[in-house]
Amino acid sequence: MFRARCLLRALRSCSSAPCPRHRPAARVSVRGALGVQSANGERVKVQGWIRSVRSQKEVLFLHVNDGSSLESLQVVADSSFDSRELAFGSSVEVQGQLVKSPSKKQNVELKAEKIEVVGNCDAKAFPFKYKERHPLEYLRQYPHLRCRTNVLGSVLRVRSEATAAIHSFFKDSGFVHIHTPVITSNDCEGAGELFQVEPSSKIKVPEENFFNIPVFLTVSGQLHLEVMSGAFTQVFTFGPTFRAENSQSRRHLAEFYMVEAEISFLESLQDLMQVMESLFKTTAMTVLSNCPKDVELCHKFIAPGQKDRLEHMLKNNFLIISYTEAVEILKQASQNFTFTPEWGADLHTEHEKYLVKHCGDIPVFVINYPLALKPFYMRENEDGPQHTVAAVDLLVPGIGELFGGSLREERYHFLEQRLARLGLTEAYQWYLDLRRFGSVPHGGFGMGFERYLQCILGIDNIKDVIPFPRFTHSCLL
Amino acid sequence: MFRARCLLRALRSCSSAPCPRHRPAARVSVRGALGVQSANGERVKVQGWIRSVRSQKEVLFLHVNDGSSLESLQVVADSSFDSRELAFGSSVEVQGQLVKSPSKKQNVELKAEKIEVVGNCDAKAFPFKYKERHPLEYLRQYPHLRCRTNVLGSVLRVRSEATAAIHSFFKDSGFVHIHTPVITSNDCEGAGELFQVEPSSKIKVPEENFFNIPVFLTVSGQLHLEVMSGAFTQVFTFGPTFRAENSQSRRHLAEFYMVEAEISFLESLQDLMQVMESLFKTTAMTVLSNCPKDVELCHKFIAPGQKDRLEHMLKNNFLIISYTEAVEILKQASQNFTFTPEWGADLHTEHEKYLVKHCGDIPVFVINYPLALKPFYMRENEDGPQHTVAAVDLLVPGIGELFGGSLREERYHFLEQRLARLGLTEAYQWYLDLRRFGSVPHGGFGMGFERYLQCILGIDNIKDVIPFPRFTHSCLL
Repeated sequence: MFRARCLLRALRSCSSAPCPRHRPAARVSVRGALGVQSANGERVKVQGWIRSVRSQKEVLFLHVNDGSSLESLQVVADSSFDSRELAFGSSVEVQGQLVKSPSKKQNVELKAEKIEVVGNCDAKAFPFKYKERHPLEYLRQYPHLRCRTNVLGSVLRVRSEATAAIHSFFKDSGFVHIHTPVITSNDCEGAGELFQVEPSSKIKVPEENFFNIPVFLTVSGQLHLEVMSGAFTQVFTFGPTFRAENSQSRRHLAEFYMVEAEISFLESLQDLMQVMESLFKTTAMTVLSNCPKDVELCHKFIAPGQKDRLEHMLKNNFLIISYTEAVEILKQASQNFTFTPEWGADLHTEHEKYLVKHCGDIPVFVINYPLALKPFYMRENEDGPQHTVAAVDLLVPGIGELFGGSLREERYHFLEQRLARLGLTEAYQWYLDLRRFGSVPHGGFGMGFERYLQCILGIDNIKDVIPFPRFTHSCLL
Repeated sequence: MFRARCLLRALRSCSSAPCPRHRPAARVSVRGALGVQSANGERVKVQGWIRSVRSQKEVLFLHVNDGSSLESLQVVADSSFDSRELAFGSSVEVQGQLVKSPSKKQNVELKAEKIEVVGNCDAKAFPFKYKERHPLEYLRQYPHLRCRTNVLGSVLRVRSEATAAIHSFFKDSGFVHIHTPVITSNDCEGAGELFQVEPSSKIKVPEENFFNIPVFLTVSGQLHLEVMSGAFTQVFTFGPTFRAENSQSRRHLAEFYMVEAEISFLESLQDLMQVMESLFKTTAMTVLSNCPKDVELCHKFIAPGQKDRLEHMLKNNFLIISYTEAVEILKQASQNFTFTPEWGADLHTEHEKYLVKHCGDIPVFVINYPLALKPFYMRENEDGPQHTVAAVDLLVPGIGELFGGSLREERYHFLEQRLARLGLTEAYQWYLDLRRFGSVPHGGFGMGFERYLQCILGIDNIKDVIPFPRFTHSCLL
């Protein structure tokens, strides 16, 4: 572990004096080895899995990958090594000298002195074949092995980088990170698509119910974040959320990740949209800069044209239209929709996709939705005769809705009346309390993290951007 | 939002020329305002909640807090402001000039030009009283409001900093972050204390079971991380885990957070313990350096003496003893234990606490536990007649077990035999697969995040270091 640091230290000491042959080789990652600018015979040890073997008359070429980067390290060995043992998928430890490569394909290669097979790979049973590009649908059958392929390796490294970038974005902007609960007695959206949680039947608890009340898996951390924004002003959460939707679509999962933020003393959708756009762009730029090769692989082999589409999104200001304008645009469209667009009706995916196209494939904020369509906590615009709330959705090319957000109703009496009408006053007394003790105007949003990755990388199916997808009829491992 | 940046920009432009009175005041956080080194009449706007009001003959002192730091900003107003409106708990927006404070208690104060009450606080109903220090048990009754107190504010800011520090620790060491699943069809420990997940009764799914098979909330991400360590070499996860334990103790929650890491090509417990110790110490140092005031509050008012205890832990090398040695120490103890120490029996909390004390209150690794006590995936030491596995627990003062880890059984035939004996071969075929296709020696660990916070801050009850605690008979909000 701590390979990067060890490498640096090892190489520093190597460069000052010639390395004696008996000195123990410094353990380096493939990424570390490939990053050496002017290789000069440093003795190193590399461990990883064989991605390819090519045997020539006098020389043997191996490519060894350890997941630290998309690229593998080329190992050059003389014919004294037995190539039969060195098979695709096997794990190896190679010791040798890092030297400048004569080939243009790489800067450095490893001249092997010792190659040890750590674990063999049963090639007949291994579901991935050497030099074959397997479709993503095929890989999905092997959730325990697919991360060893180039594509899933790249996607998951990007996912890791994006996760770090999102944490940094909020930290740098002064937000406090909050772990909102997974198990909750609340039902944020008033939706019915919940998972219920109970102790497994193996357990005997004296009471009928472990928590005394019915509890569910969270559909959003928003209400809990609102609690925290009343203390820390700016807060965010980044965790799993759940929907028991009976959907097999390429856009839905039963378990997915949401990035949610809540901001106190925020009075306009304009200010909220600025944070949303900034989060989208800053994270994308960080990912593009930190793992260009991984992004390039997706843009090249999975989604040709996505590179340009992404650049187009990043260099343009996102657009803003009102829901009312959106409905007008849809009504005037020459396209026939399955659901006829009409003021007061929900926007469907077909509508969202049309709107984005209409806006020149630039992400577009749709604001001020009909009050009747939205949950109780959204702030009333006090307009009419068609009443709206200060809600905002961000629609993006290829995906549709990526963010949802709103100003929250901070006025006690407005909220009290809406809750009373819904018969929820008692259940949400604690939420009303937040408006009784130093209430402030505030707003927030949630971004679907998997959809964000789909949007950046151009991956069509949401099941391919999460390590272990859970959806109707499927919970492998 | 982006207050820190805005402040810097605003102040830079302010310092170059005298600020005209009509210029709009720059919005700054309390932390930002307090950080200004030489205040010189900069016009700013601060928003937050009133923590105290003190009215003198000609002048009014307010303390305004926005959660960006433990400290509040002192606002000085002349008697023309109506102090009746300015009550404890109310939210306010104050505009004025940042000036050097004549008092030694703070560097700067805000000379108010305009104070606007944003939201009143119903003082009679508000459960926290001005100038009163409420016990943590009392605060626990108000999960929606307790974050507004000094103690919970500090604890949750520390939690946020520690979260960021842990992400940085792993990123800097080359680990890939993995979101291991919450819903799983696995039962990692073979333990019975699971929560089961089903669609809420409101939903009608054609099939009896949403996922076709029984599914549970995860008790550990380890097995899923092992999948990923076979591709990325070094991986970590940091997410919620669950136990349906019927426990009301100060050390257990039904929902808590675990930091877990898995490392390929790792061959000794020594190397694993080095990462564990480094994670413990690096994170603590970062927290101490980034939020000294928050830590100080806990050490001063909640856990006197904890400052010294923590320093003692950080400056000493952690100790290592074997399970067999531990049992010998316990047998020779003059103390009477509820559970008689004996080779082959589990170590209980009373034993763990004795061992730590015996080791001079330095965290101690206990290694090589009896095979029969540990799960199937731990690596056999091939010793005897008393068979052990390469397991390690880290015991820390005041808490007991903080980390648990092991080398994993990477040898196909050893693992196959153990699974066969347990009748688990079929269920864990995928796990066996990982040993069939390029197996490597590897190991990993998990750290209870809440226990870690308890250990750093000296907080006695685990319910006080998590935003929304869930435990038997309690799932508030």
